[in-house]
Amino acid sequence: MIDTLIKRILELNNPSVVGLDPRLDFIPEFIKQEAYGSYGQTLKGASDAYLRFNKAIIDQIADIVPAVKPQIAMYEQFGYEGIKAYLDTIEYAKSKGLIVIGDIKRSDIASTAEAYSHGHIGRVKVEEHSYCVYKEDFITLNPYLGVDSIEPYMNDCQKYNKGLFILVKTSNPNGGQIQDLSTDGKRIYEVIGSLVSEWGQASIGSYGFSQVGAVVGATYKKQCLELRTLMPHTFFLVPGYGAQGAGAKDIADCFNKNGLGAIVNSSRGIIAAYKKDKYASKYSEKEFHYAARQAAEDMKKDINSVIQ
Amino acid sequence: MIDTLIKRILELNNPSVVGLDPRLDFIPEFIKQEAYGSYGQTLKGASDAYLRFNKAIIDQIADIVPAVKPQIAMYEQFGYEGIKAYLDTIEYAKSKGLIVIGDIKRSDIASTAEAYSHGHIGRVKVEEHSYCVYKEDFITLNPYLGVDSIEPYMNDCQKYNKGLFILVKTSNPNGGQIQDLSTDGKRIYEVIGSLVSEWGQASIGSYGFSQVGAVVGATYKKQCLELRTLMPHTFFLVPGYGAQGAGAKDIADCFNKNGLGAIVNSSRGIIAAYKKDKYASKYSEKEFHYAARQAAEDMKKDINSVIQ
Repeated sequence: MIDTLIKRILELNNPSVVGLDPRLDFIPEFIKQEAYGSYGQTLKGASDAYLRFNKAIIDQIADIVPAVKPQIAMYEQFGYEGIKAYLDTIEYAKSKGLIVIGDIKRSDIASTAEAYSHGHIGRVKVEEHSYCVYKEDFITLNPYLGVDSIEPYMNDCQKYNKGLFILVKTSNPNGGQIQDLSTDGKRIYEVIGSLVSEWGQASIGSYGFSQVGAVVGATYKKQCLELRTLMPHTFFLVPGYGAQGAGAKDIADCFNKNGLGAIVNSSRGIIAAYKKDKYASKYSEKEFHYAARQAAEDMKKDINSVIQ
Repeated sequence: MIDTLIKRILELNNPSVVGLDPRLDFIPEFIKQEAYGSYGQTLKGASDAYLRFNKAIIDQIADIVPAVKPQIAMYEQFGYEGIKAYLDTIEYAKSKGLIVIGDIKRSDIASTAEAYSHGHIGRVKVEEHSYCVYKEDFITLNPYLGVDSIEPYMNDCQKYNKGLFILVKTSNPNGGQIQDLSTDGKRIYEVIGSLVSEWGQASIGSYGFSQVGAVVGATYKKQCLELRTLMPHTFFLVPGYGAQGAGAKDIADCFNKNGLGAIVNSSRGIIAAYKKDKYASKYSEKEFHYAARQAAEDMKKDINSVIQ
């Protein structure tokens, strides 16, 4: 799947991913009214508003962006109706040719990890039948429990041609509280970076990158360069661009000298672009999806301006 | 909520929790046939089998055990139907007076953590309405992203009287790969233990334990004692007893000299007891729930034999 992702990035000349992390206050009033009209101001109504919103965004970006990254928390909070909207969003995005990175950041012991893995990227058996449930192409994972908590996913990646992005250096302000601690002259994020690199050795594809990728926050510029050097065969999923404060110059070092090696995420910077001054003057609330397309185009240009 | 949990542990003289982590191969054939009869060998059929199984177990243990701990992965793998079974299991357990520890091990940046927190232990707003969605009393969390990823949950704990168990030292074989690294003469799990202890200082209840608890695996006996000393006001959720290999003597040090400070989990050792030689001779497959009750009684006795 990493080869498929890189191929699509090259075809579109666009190493960016749109985070589908809706919030009700990002969603235009007319969409919410349609959804609430059908299901009331309920968890189902809110979930339906998410799905309508996502579909309109997906329709506008599918031909210019290689991938979307739905954040499962935003859906999970609405209970099973929200999970249904998450599943339907993935199904719709894939039907439009988008690659889907499920931002789930799961972590558990092996026997439990197996259930997550089968559900999200493998197949779930019910007696004689087996089901492909969530259908993400990639998922994100938390490494705090060590390699036996990651292996079940690595097995399913091999079996079903999927990919992983493992948290190495996160974009949030206190990410360093544990990740930046020193051990034997190395930071924890470097130790994990080395492990992730090692876990990926057996699955390096035709572009030189492995199925086991890393999450490296754009908000820590110096660490991006360090990790790019430390992990030459590891593809990076880079959050933090846009609303979290990082700009194009901050993410430049996530790419290698061939201009490959990373995909940069923006969520509300794209999906809620119509609320930003820059786009609000040109696009009405009804044109939120056109504003998203324009913001995705602008992001592509911005990122390409700093990579070789 | 920590006070409520400890009060119930004392009333029942039972510091144990039953892990509701079903697997289809734990579930008696007659239950599966009933569920598949209604919904086929589908994700919905499997989810229904889980719920029927859980209800029968809950009915048998609710008067002798203070709490249950459903592992969300087992349900999540079945998609939205599985999440519905998770929600229905929680609802049913609470209706029978059980305290519910949602084993979700979530981890994400603050804005996302807020969505998880509102959904699981807080309230989710949909315009003028607000909903209590998952209704767990406690949830488990992963600390790798630092304090800003935990704060949203701490706020909801205060607001809605809930509790947390944060991964400190996990029970799995490779848990030490990151958790046991040394930094400034301390292990990572000790650093996190100190942080968890600090995060709980503001919410110490009437038994001397805070709303912010820790997950400490029974499979690492020496570390249990170290952490019990380091974190006198932190309540431990202790996995690893039973199927994962730890016995009563291994968990003794998780308790303080008053016999308080921990709740020990067993999952398949209780819910699949009827498959173990010890119980299979006395209980048929149809009596799986009676075997579970007996196993829960035996566990209570075993744990109480080592605490003061």
